[in-house]
Amino acid sequence: MTGRKVTRDDLRQAAEKYKNWGKWGPDDEIGTLNYTSAEDVVAAARLVKKGKVISLALNFDNNGPQGGKTNYPALGRINPLHTMLRTGTDAYSGVLDKRGIRAADDMVVIPLQCGTQWDGLGHVFYENSMWNGYDCREVSSFGAQKCGIEKTKSKMVGRGVFLDVARALGKDCLDDGYGITCADLELTAKKQKVEFKRGDYIIVRTGQMERCLKAGNWDGYPGGDAPGFAFETLEFVAKTELAALASDTWGCEVRPNNTEGGINQPWHWITIPIMGMTMGEIFYLKDLAEDCAGDGTYEFMFVAPAIPITGAVGSPTNPLAIK
Amino acid sequence: MTGRKVTRDDLRQAAEKYKNWGKWGPDDEIGTLNYTSAEDVVAAARLVKKGKVISLALNFDNNGPQGGKTNYPALGRINPLHTMLRTGTDAYSGVLDKRGIRAADDMVVIPLQCGTQWDGLGHVFYENSMWNGYDCREVSSFGAQKCGIEKTKSKMVGRGVFLDVARALGKDCLDDGYGITCADLELTAKKQKVEFKRGDYIIVRTGQMERCLKAGNWDGYPGGDAPGFAFETLEFVAKTELAALASDTWGCEVRPNNTEGGINQPWHWITIPIMGMTMGEIFYLKDLAEDCAGDGTYEFMFVAPAIPITGAVGSPTNPLAIK
Amino acid sequence: MTGRKVTRDDLRQAAEKYKNWGKWGPDDEIGTLNYTSAEDVVAAARLVKKGKVISLALNFDNNGPQGGKTNYPALGRINPLHTMLRTGTDAYSGVLDKRGIRAADDMVVIPLQCGTQWDGLGHVFYENSMWNGYDCREVSSFGAQKCGIEKTKSKMVGRGVFLDVARALGKDCLDDGYGITCADLELTAKKQKVEFKRGDYIIVRTGQMERCLKAGNWDGYPGGDAPGFAFETLEFVAKTELAALASDTWGCEVRPNNTEGGINQPWHWITIPIMGMTMGEIFYLKDLAEDCAGDGTYEFMFVAPAIPITGAVGSPTNPLAIK
Amino acid sequence: MTGRKVTRDDLRQAAEKYKNWGKWGPDDEIGTLNYTSAEDVVAAARLVKKGKVISLALNFDNNGPQGGKTNYPALGRINPLHTMLRTGTDAYSGVLDKRGIRAADDMVVIPLQCGTQWDGLGHVFYENSMWNGYDCREVSSFGAQKCGIEKTKSKMVGRGVFLDVARALGKDCLDDGYGITCADLELTAKKQKVEFKRGDYIIVRTGQMERCLKAGNWDGYPGGDAPGFAFETLEFVAKTELAALASDTWGCEVRPNNTEGGINQPWHWITIPIMGMTMGEIFYLKDLAEDCAGDGTYEFMFVAPAIPITGAVGSPTNPLAIK
Repeated sequence: MTGRKVTRDDLRQAAEKYKNWGKWGPDDEIGTLNYTSAEDVVAAARLVKKGKVISLALNFDNNGPQGGKTNYPALGRINPLHTMLRTGTDAYSGVLDKRGIRAADDMVVIPLQCGTQWDGLGHVFYENSMWNGYDCREVSSFGAQKCGIEKTKSKMVGRGVFLDVARALGKDCLDDGYGITCADLELTAKKQKVEFKRGDYIIVRTGQMERCLKAGNWDGYPGGDAPGFAFETLEFVAKTELAALASDTWGCEVRPNNTEGGINQPWHWITIPIMGMTMGEIFYLKDLAEDCAGDGTYEFMFVAPAIPITGAVGSPTNPLAIK
Repeated sequence: MTGRKVTRDDLRQAAEKYKNWGKWGPDDEIGTLNYTSAEDVVAAARLVKKGKVISLALNFDNNGPQGGKTNYPALGRINPLHTMLRTGTDAYSGVLDKRGIRAADDMVVIPLQCGTQWDGLGHVFYENSMWNGYDCREVSSFGAQKCGIEKTKSKMVGRGVFLDVARALGKDCLDDGYGITCADLELTAKKQKVEFKRGDYIIVRTGQMERCLKAGNWDGYPGGDAPGFAFETLEFVAKTELAALASDTWGCEVRPNNTEGGINQPWHWITIPIMGMTMGEIFYLKDLAEDCAGDGTYEFMFVAPAIPITGAVGSPTNPLAIK
Repeated sequence: MTGRKVTRDDLRQAAEKYKNWGKWGPDDEIGTLNYTSAEDVVAAARLVKKGKVISLALNFDNNGPQGGKTNYPALGRINPLHTMLRTGTDAYSGVLDKRGIRAADDMVVIPLQCGTQWDGLGHVFYENSMWNGYDCREVSSFGAQKCGIEKTKSKMVGRGVFLDVARALGKDCLDDGYGITCADLELTAKKQKVEFKRGDYIIVRTGQMERCLKAGNWDGYPGGDAPGFAFETLEFVAKTELAALASDTWGCEVRPNNTEGGINQPWHWITIPIMGMTMGEIFYLKDLAEDCAGDGTYEFMFVAPAIPITGAVGSPTNPLAIK
Repeated sequence: MTGRKVTRDDLRQAAEKYKNWGKWGPDDEIGTLNYTSAEDVVAAARLVKKGKVISLALNFDNNGPQGGKTNYPALGRINPLHTMLRTGTDAYSGVLDKRGIRAADDMVVIPLQCGTQWDGLGHVFYENSMWNGYDCREVSSFGAQKCGIEKTKSKMVGRGVFLDVARALGKDCLDDGYGITCADLELTAKKQKVEFKRGDYIIVRTGQMERCLKAGNWDGYPGGDAPGFAFETLEFVAKTELAALASDTWGCEVRPNNTEGGINQPWHWITIPIMGMTMGEIFYLKDLAEDCAGDGTYEFMFVAPAIPITGAVGSPTNPLAIK
């Protein structure tokens, strides 16, 4: 499909071809997370061999990606605003002592899509539908009545497979606008000598985040041009029967989107509401990339629990690769 | 020490006896989390045998414990306020279509100590000091310059040991004001046929949260009377060389605190700033308790990553027991 | 209409009878606030005779009405959460000095309907319409594209008329469920020797808030039973050609609402979207009541600017009666 | 003092010379707001002659000044984040109908110093003291126990005097770094044929905000270089016995500050904690300037109530000039 613009008709065909609605029953709210079986969890744990834990999270603070310039309206996505409710300076000043304990507390105002995060199945709609055919109106101002992120609270554990596509293609960072193909993913896996299994958590590195971190600014990162999944990788998602897919970019899929008729993020239109695929974005992959390049092992135990905020359509997460 | 009130002199003696400052070098910011070695992580993974993942988190919503009546000033600890930035009703109404994608977003205003949570090492001070001897003024309105929760981002993985003290003592719920002793903990372990190892994550059930959930209200839970660790269990913490300790109550330690001179939460005064012990609170243990009673296995792989909010003194978490 | 339940048909008839759409042109976004002329403002200023300024605002804090028990879901209306960004304790601790100034800053998380407030014209819809016939979808997650409270930024100045209905009816507080009638309002005005003029800001006291303040708790206040305007007072609103109407209750109109078919707040259905009337709620009237009873003067200059939050459907306000 | 750098010794001398502590008794918490008498309020109302109300507020939204680039750390001052709790799109979608009313609600996360605002007397400290000699530790994480903005709730009414210094000096906008002198202020008043009276609210235009608005960006505005009051204008503040002073800049005083020894905002060090002067910042003065230039009248009734957020050190405001 590369080279040709994605049309509304392509979307319709893809929706028909890749629709997983009903696959896990009419009441399912977690989609492809179901692919990971208990046996897969046991097998994933067996991958822990050197006892190394690698966090795939950016720190959540005012240096986060939402500070970057963008033409894509942020619609309320700010960097997290962390504020204190009590402090050590209060303690030092003696004003806490009437309470008999010197303690600090804090809070955060945090858009759930502002940093390293899971996009839940309530995050994107196809026409008037969300995952499994639920009415999109289930996600109102009162939150997601269906497919809230809290439904995943015992998931996000399984085998992690890391695909360092940038490295496999001999680049520090894929070019903005470069659409990763199925062939790229297969090639990367082959070079890394790793095979896919049903229920995997597949994590793909483009290098874009590291380019921003090196440059010391996030301009263009949130909603700007980026390397990412081409529309055709829907086939990869379907064929591998993966549990979830994550990347180091703002939105996983290639931007600009190469579409017609004002369609934005066509891959999202299909992956989330049609296939029921939970998606990880803004994953920090530098440390993992270095470790995998070092030991040649691209599979590991992956544990990345969402914070079960009732009715949320996403969640910040601190994903761990445990090798 | 049971039966006798804890005095400021007891605190001074305990501070001297249990002080771990410098144990992991002058720059350490994570304390007893250091006890878990790479080998311990590997061994913990070996405990995954049936592939079952059990979440120990309460959902984060307006039904959370901060709604309970209490005489203990909440100081800004509210239940999380989850609000939407875009919705499926916007989608249905057609107002999103100019953007070319129908998507929902959301945010949360969340005190970091409001639900299932880690208390970081910046949370409590002993006089003017925090863990490892850092000046308490390192925790100002700008957050924790030392011992921020983000320093733990690759920790919170290890062997979990569950101590169902309520069950071992033949109770649905320990009585409010009941101080759990070292003997209670040893007895529970013995009954459960589990032994402690250095670097364990030990999780203790009092049954109090389930009592609240059954009653359908949280009155008294936040800051009220509760079963919990007696002051003497500092010895247990020291001896077991545990990585972290968690419980199903608001504040882990017994309340009322049985102290003199207006001392509040004396166990906290020592565990966090003196011993460097990260503490888990408001853990939901019902499902874990049932599973462990069912299969007789009280050890498992424990993964409970904090969200690395820079400078935070705590973090919500979705702790997973993986069996 | 007292005694008979308000039906959907009554609403339809009222909507037809009282509809002000188009009265101030097709682009109007402020409705009856237009009634106050420049001359009225000049005349209002002439009412300032003793130089006394009386605030009609409750303080905004954790003691506010949202703490009261209620069966009416709060839907995110919490008491304001005021937190500090820098403090005097930081100053005392010396941590601010590197900045060369010792200063405190703060922020608030505040639902705009949580305390003394204006309900803007985007607050209530009649079927799919808002004031002046605008489509209700103009109020999306992106705020009110029409009738945002910021459109009133140079309004809310005029003659204030205070109607102490409770006092006129010989009560400390009208009974919950008591529907104030047109006759009550006329009688009160007559007793107080005050006449209405077009463009007035009319403020009505039921005494309910003072009952809560005296009792020391707000149980039942937010969304519970209350004295307030009967449905028939739509006629009063229309006839007086008032600019805005305010009261000391949570929702101005009588509760329970005395309706059929699940209609809630029928008076709101008409006043806001059909008549274009901005409404003041949770006004603190004790001091004003005492002053007016003391000097026998129930008219004054009224200045109650909204905070012009773009796209907001309401605003906290500190209304001033200047006598 | 122009041309010479302000030193710590200058601050000490100014603190001694201008100290108003005790002037309104030991318990005073509002400082120079006391200067406005009841007679002054009556006289101010007499200035209302044409019935025109001019708002001096910027709208509060994401286009606010906190978006501007700056090297001065924002410390949590973001533009207000306005979010919806219920919407017209919910209404349209039918999800509100079970509640029997179609209504929208909203909230805002708003740093109190982010836009058109009053700096309260808890905002700045001189060494360890705040206004009237209160200990700076009265402003802890629990808010301002003394001098909270709520103490001003019946103030902020009086005679407004507008000084269009930019216009008087023949400029569209004073230059960044230009320190307005006492002579400039006197000259402006003279040109405008207006005299000062005790208890006035004096509003000074530099033109800087309009320059930003015209340029379409706020770069440099928050904390950057700016025209503003020279240190010597402390004398003007003292001599005029004004109630409050406001300007169209981020911080009223000239920047850079022309100081030695790392002193930042020296004028603030004296005006707020030593003189007890409430200060208005980020006032929008374009409309007022045009109106005053048009009718030649630079005095008016000024009403600018703070939102009485308990313990706040500032407040957003919608200041009204009523002519």
